[in-house]
Amino acid sequence: MFQIFDVRGERAASVVRIAALRDRLRAEGLDGFIVPHSDEHQSEYLPPSAERLAWLTGFTGSAGSAVVLHDAAAVFVDGRYTLQAAAEVDPAAATVVASAETPLGKWLSARLKPGDRIGYDPWLSTVGEARKLAKRCADVGAVLVPVATNPIDAIWPRRPTAPLGPVDLHPQALAGEAVVDKLRRVATKLGERKADALVLAKADAVAWTFNIRGADVAHNAAPLAFAILRREGRPQLFIDARKLSNAVRAALADVADIAEPAALPEAIDGLAAAKLRVLADPEEIPAALGERLVAAGGVLVEGEDPTLLLKARKNTAEIDGARKAHLRDGLAMVRFLAWLDRTAPSGTIDEIGAIEALERFRSAAAHDDGSALVDISFDTIAGAGPNGAIVHYRVNRDSNRKLDQDSLFLIDSGGQYRDGTTDVTRTVAIGTPTAEMRDRFTRVLRGMIAVSRARFPAGTAGAQIDVLARLPQWEAGLDYDHGTGHGVGSFLSVHEGPQRLSKTGHVALEPGMILSNEPGSYRTGAFGIRIENLVVVTPAVAIPGGERPMLGFETLTLVPIDLRLVDVAQLGKAERDWLNAYHARVRAAHGKRVSPEDRAWLEAATRAV
Amino acid sequence: MFQIFDVRGERAASVVRIAALRDRLRAEGLDGFIVPHSDEHQSEYLPPSAERLAWLTGFTGSAGSAVVLHDAAAVFVDGRYTLQAAAEVDPAAATVVASAETPLGKWLSARLKPGDRIGYDPWLSTVGEARKLAKRCADVGAVLVPVATNPIDAIWPRRPTAPLGPVDLHPQALAGEAVVDKLRRVATKLGERKADALVLAKADAVAWTFNIRGADVAHNAAPLAFAILRREGRPQLFIDARKLSNAVRAALADVADIAEPAALPEAIDGLAAAKLRVLADPEEIPAALGERLVAAGGVLVEGEDPTLLLKARKNTAEIDGARKAHLRDGLAMVRFLAWLDRTAPSGTIDEIGAIEALERFRSAAAHDDGSALVDISFDTIAGAGPNGAIVHYRVNRDSNRKLDQDSLFLIDSGGQYRDGTTDVTRTVAIGTPTAEMRDRFTRVLRGMIAVSRARFPAGTAGAQIDVLARLPQWEAGLDYDHGTGHGVGSFLSVHEGPQRLSKTGHVALEPGMILSNEPGSYRTGAFGIRIENLVVVTPAVAIPGGERPMLGFETLTLVPIDLRLVDVAQLGKAERDWLNAYHARVRAAHGKRVSPEDRAWLEAATRAV
Repeated sequence: MFQIFDVRGERAASVVRIAALRDRLRAEGLDGFIVPHSDEHQSEYLPPSAERLAWLTGFTGSAGSAVVLHDAAAVFVDGRYTLQAAAEVDPAAATVVASAETPLGKWLSARLKPGDRIGYDPWLSTVGEARKLAKRCADVGAVLVPVATNPIDAIWPRRPTAPLGPVDLHPQALAGEAVVDKLRRVATKLGERKADALVLAKADAVAWTFNIRGADVAHNAAPLAFAILRREGRPQLFIDARKLSNAVRAALADVADIAEPAALPEAIDGLAAAKLRVLADPEEIPAALGERLVAAGGVLVEGEDPTLLLKARKNTAEIDGARKAHLRDGLAMVRFLAWLDRTAPSGTIDEIGAIEALERFRSAAAHDDGSALVDISFDTIAGAGPNGAIVHYRVNRDSNRKLDQDSLFLIDSGGQYRDGTTDVTRTVAIGTPTAEMRDRFTRVLRGMIAVSRARFPAGTAGAQIDVLARLPQWEAGLDYDHGTGHGVGSFLSVHEGPQRLSKTGHVALEPGMILSNEPGSYRTGAFGIRIENLVVVTPAVAIPGGERPMLGFETLTLVPIDLRLVDVAQLGKAERDWLNAYHARVRAAHGKRVSPEDRAWLEAATRAV
Repeated sequence: MFQIFDVRGERAASVVRIAALRDRLRAEGLDGFIVPHSDEHQSEYLPPSAERLAWLTGFTGSAGSAVVLHDAAAVFVDGRYTLQAAAEVDPAAATVVASAETPLGKWLSARLKPGDRIGYDPWLSTVGEARKLAKRCADVGAVLVPVATNPIDAIWPRRPTAPLGPVDLHPQALAGEAVVDKLRRVATKLGERKADALVLAKADAVAWTFNIRGADVAHNAAPLAFAILRREGRPQLFIDARKLSNAVRAALADVADIAEPAALPEAIDGLAAAKLRVLADPEEIPAALGERLVAAGGVLVEGEDPTLLLKARKNTAEIDGARKAHLRDGLAMVRFLAWLDRTAPSGTIDEIGAIEALERFRSAAAHDDGSALVDISFDTIAGAGPNGAIVHYRVNRDSNRKLDQDSLFLIDSGGQYRDGTTDVTRTVAIGTPTAEMRDRFTRVLRGMIAVSRARFPAGTAGAQIDVLARLPQWEAGLDYDHGTGHGVGSFLSVHEGPQRLSKTGHVALEPGMILSNEPGSYRTGAFGIRIENLVVVTPAVAIPGGERPMLGFETLTLVPIDLRLVDVAQLGKAERDWLNAYHARVRAAHGKRVSPEDRAWLEAATRAV
C-alpha cells in the first residue's frame, strides 16, 4: 500500500507540458487556464486520472492550484506546502506563490487585461469557486470561460483511466443504520429546508447514504459516485456499472435507481423541468451541474449538505466499531514501537524502513483478530530529525533519512478497517533527547491532555476547545500553524467535516463526533513533535452540584506516549493522573496479546510516573 | 443621574395604545407593524423620543422588538429579558415570545396571509434587517411596506422632542489623533475597498471621527448625528445646528461641511447622481438611506464600517486616559466598598441607597483630581440576594430589596469621564457567605484570572479567550449565559464592537482594544456573582525561548476583590500570585488618597492570601 512518489523527472517535464498547454489554449482562443487540485467530487485525495496539477507542475501536495497564462504561470500553496512546492516546482516553469498572502484570484486579477478569456473546467470547480473567480475576472473586464473538455487531458499522453474499484456493501452491523432509514432522515431535513431534492457530489456523502464502500482512490473507502436524493420518491445513484457485482447491484437496486455518471446532466435537466427546488452545497456541487440546473430553469437552493452532520454524528454501532479498530491498530503500534526501540540503536533504520515495518505490523494485527487491514488511511508521515518539522512531509528516495542518535522521530499513520478508520501520531526519542525537546514535548502533551479532559456544555464550538491545546505553548511564547483536530469518518475519509478543532471551527461539537486531538511543536531544521489520539464526543458523567448536562471526550487511540520525553515536574496532578490512567488503559488493552518480549517493553513504556 | 424607571401605569396603558395603533394601521391600509427597539442610529440606549417600544408595550429592556397585527401582538426578547418582559408586558396587550426559539420573522410568517401588507419604519430598521423581513413576507405572498412617518408618533400624545444636548470638542490631548488624520486613514480604507464614500449612521462612529462628544442620550457621550466621508474631498456632518455653539461650529467647519439631518436624503441622492461607489454597513445603515441610494441609481458597496476597527484600537493618549479614569473610578469604588462594609451590618441599606451612595463617591472622587464625572456610563445594576441572579436587573421601587445578612450583593456600574469610560462589577458578602457561594465565587474569580493572565498570538479571536473564563465552571458542571467580555469605548459607548469575548467573538484581538473581563455565576432565586475588570490588549513581554510575538492584557480596573468569598485552597499558585499582585497594585494606587479609616479597610481588603 505504501508507494514512494518519485518526483524527479516530473519536475523536469513541467516546462514542456506547460508550453504544450499554452499551445492548446491558443488554439481554443483562451488567454489562460485554471488548474485546481480536485476531481469532480472535490476529493482531498485524487485518483491518478485527476492528478492534473501534479502532472502539469510537479507539485504533489494534497491542496493547491495553478494558473497558466501565456506570459506567466503560478502554483498557489498554503503554509504547509511552501517548502515542498519550492522543491518540486521548476522555477523555469512556474512561480510558487503563498496563497495566504496572494490568493489565486488576487494574483489573477492583477495580471488580466480587459477582454481576456480565462478557461476553467466546470467539473473541477464548485459553484462557489466559479462564482468568485468569475467576479475576479469581471472586475477587470475579463471573462471566465467554462471548457467542454479539459485541455490538459488532450496533451497528457498516457493519462491513467478513471478507477474502477469494486464496490462492497457496508453491512448494517457496522453501519448501524439501514439505507432506507438514512434516506428518511435526509427527506426530513429536505422538508425543513423546503427542498424537493438534494444533489450529492462528495464521494463520502454518497458512500454513507447508500452504505457502500469502494476502492477507487488509494486509502479512501468511498467509491467515486454521485447521487440525487428526493424528499419523496426513489433516489438515483450515478456510478460506473463496472464497479458493481451482480449481488451489490441487486442490493442497491432495492433502494435506488442506478445509472451511469454520464446520465447525471440529463437527470439535472429533469429536476429543472419538474420545477423542483434542488438543494446543493455551493462549496461541493460542481459548477457544471449547478449552472446546468439554473440554465435549464431549475431552482438551486444553496445550503449545507444535510448528510454532512448526519454522517458526523456516529451511532452506537459505528462507535463500537471504532473502539475495535483502535484496539487492533493500537496493538500494531505497540509492536512497532517496541521493535523500533530495540532496533533503532543499531542505526540501520531509515524513514522508509520504519514505514514498511509499521505496515507489516498493521497487517499482522488485523489478521490476529480475524479481521483484515483494508488499506492504510493515508500516506504515512515519518519524519526523522529535521524532516519531522515539515508538517505534511512525505518521504521520497531523496529525502529519506536515517533515524540518527539523539534525535526525535515523528510518525503519523492510520489504518482503514471495515469497522473504523484510525489516525495516530507518536513522537519518540532516538537516543537521548535534549532538555528543549523534553520541554516542548511536555507542552504538547499537556495540550493534548487538556483537550482529553475537557468538559463543556452543548453548543461549544471546536474553536473553543482548540485553545486548550495551545495554552501550554502560548505561555512559553510558542504556537503551531495547524488545527488541533479534524473530523474522522467511519471506514471513510480520514479528514471529515464539518466538526474540527481549530481557530475556524465554528461547528458545535455533538455526541458521536470523532475527532483527532493532535497539538504539535516544530523547530525548522531541527525536529518536529506531534502527539495524536482520536477522541469521540460523549455525554460527560454528571457531577454533584452540576447544573447543566456536559459533554466530554472518550479517547479511542490506545498507544503508549514516550515517557522519556515527558518532563514530569512540568505536569500538574490532574495531568499526571490522566497520563497514568491512560497508560493503564493501554497496558490492559494490549498486555495479554503481545509477545513476552513486547510485554516487558509495554510494562516499562506505560509505567506510572 | 440615577433615575428610577417606574413601569406601573405604563403597563396598564398598553392595551389602549395598541388598540389606537391598530386603528391607525387600518386607516393606512396596513395589516401589521414592526416596532424595533432602535432609533435612526441603531443606538443601544435610546433618547426618550425613540422609546416607542417601551411606550407601546411597557417593555423597557435594552433589546427587543414587537409586532402588532390586527388579531395578535407579540414582544420578542432574548434570554436576559424573559423574566423582566413577563413582569412588564400586559398579557391582555401582547404575548411575550422568546426570540431564541421563535424569532420575529418566523412568528410573523406563520401568521401572514397572501396579500397582507406589513408596515415598518425604514429609519429604524437597517438595510440588512429590512431585507430579511421582506424575504419572510415574500415567502408567504405578503409584502413589507415602508411607512413615510411612524404611525406610533401620530398616536403618542406627549411624545418627547428629539434631544438637543450641546456638543463639545474632544481635545486632541485626549483623542490622541486629529480629525484630519482620522479622515486620511478612513480614506485609505475606502481606497482599499474601491469605494468613494462612506455613510456613517452610528453616533459613536461619527463622534470618534470628528472628535466630538455630546449629551443627547443618558450615559452616552456620542451626539446623535450622521456623516458622509469621502475618499477625496470634504466630509459632510449632519447634525442639528442647535447643538453647536459658535466655537464648536467654527472648529468643525474647518474639517467638514455641516448640514441639518433633514438634508441627508438629498445628499444621498447627490452621491447616486455622481455615480459614486458608496460603502455602508448593511447592519448599520437605515433602510431608508440604503434603499434611497439604490433607487436613485447609486452603487451601494456593502461592507463593514472601517471606523469600527480604527476606533477599537485605542492610541497611547486614549490608553493613558483610560488608566487615569480607572484610578479615579477605583478610588470611588474603594470608598464605596469600605462604606458598605461599615454600614451594611446595620441592615439599613437597600439597592437604591447603595446606588445613590456609589454615585456620590464617584462625583467626589472625580472632583478630588480636578476632573468631573460627566455621567455614569449606564444604569447601575445593584442586585441584592436573588435580584443578583437577574443578569440585566434594574431596580424600581417595587423590586428594591434590603441587603440582607448572609447574602450576596452584586453591583455593576461605571462612569463617563472625559479621559475614559469605566465599567466595573464587584460581588460582596453581606454577613457570612455559604460554602456554595464561596466555591462559585472562586470559580468565577479563577476564570477572570485566567483571562487576565492569558498570553496569546496575534490573530487569536475573542471566542478563543472566552473559553478560559468558563473552564473552572465547566469542570463543575456550571456555565453562564452571557459573553465574557464586550468592547468599551474611550469616553464613548460602554458597549463597543467589533471586539468581544464570547462564543461568537470571531474578531482577532489587537493591541489597544479595551474589553471587559466579566465571568459570572447565577442561581435563580438565590444569588448572582459577577466580577468584572476592564483590560486593554498589549504586546506581551517576550519570554526567553519564545519564538512568536505574543499579546496579553493589562488590567485597568483597580478595585479590591472580596477575599471573604475566596476559597484560597481552590487557587493554584499562579492564581494566588496574580491575586496578591493585583491587590498590591490596588493598595498602592489608592492607599495615599483615602482617609485613615478607609486606609485600614483597604489594607485588610487587599492583604496577601
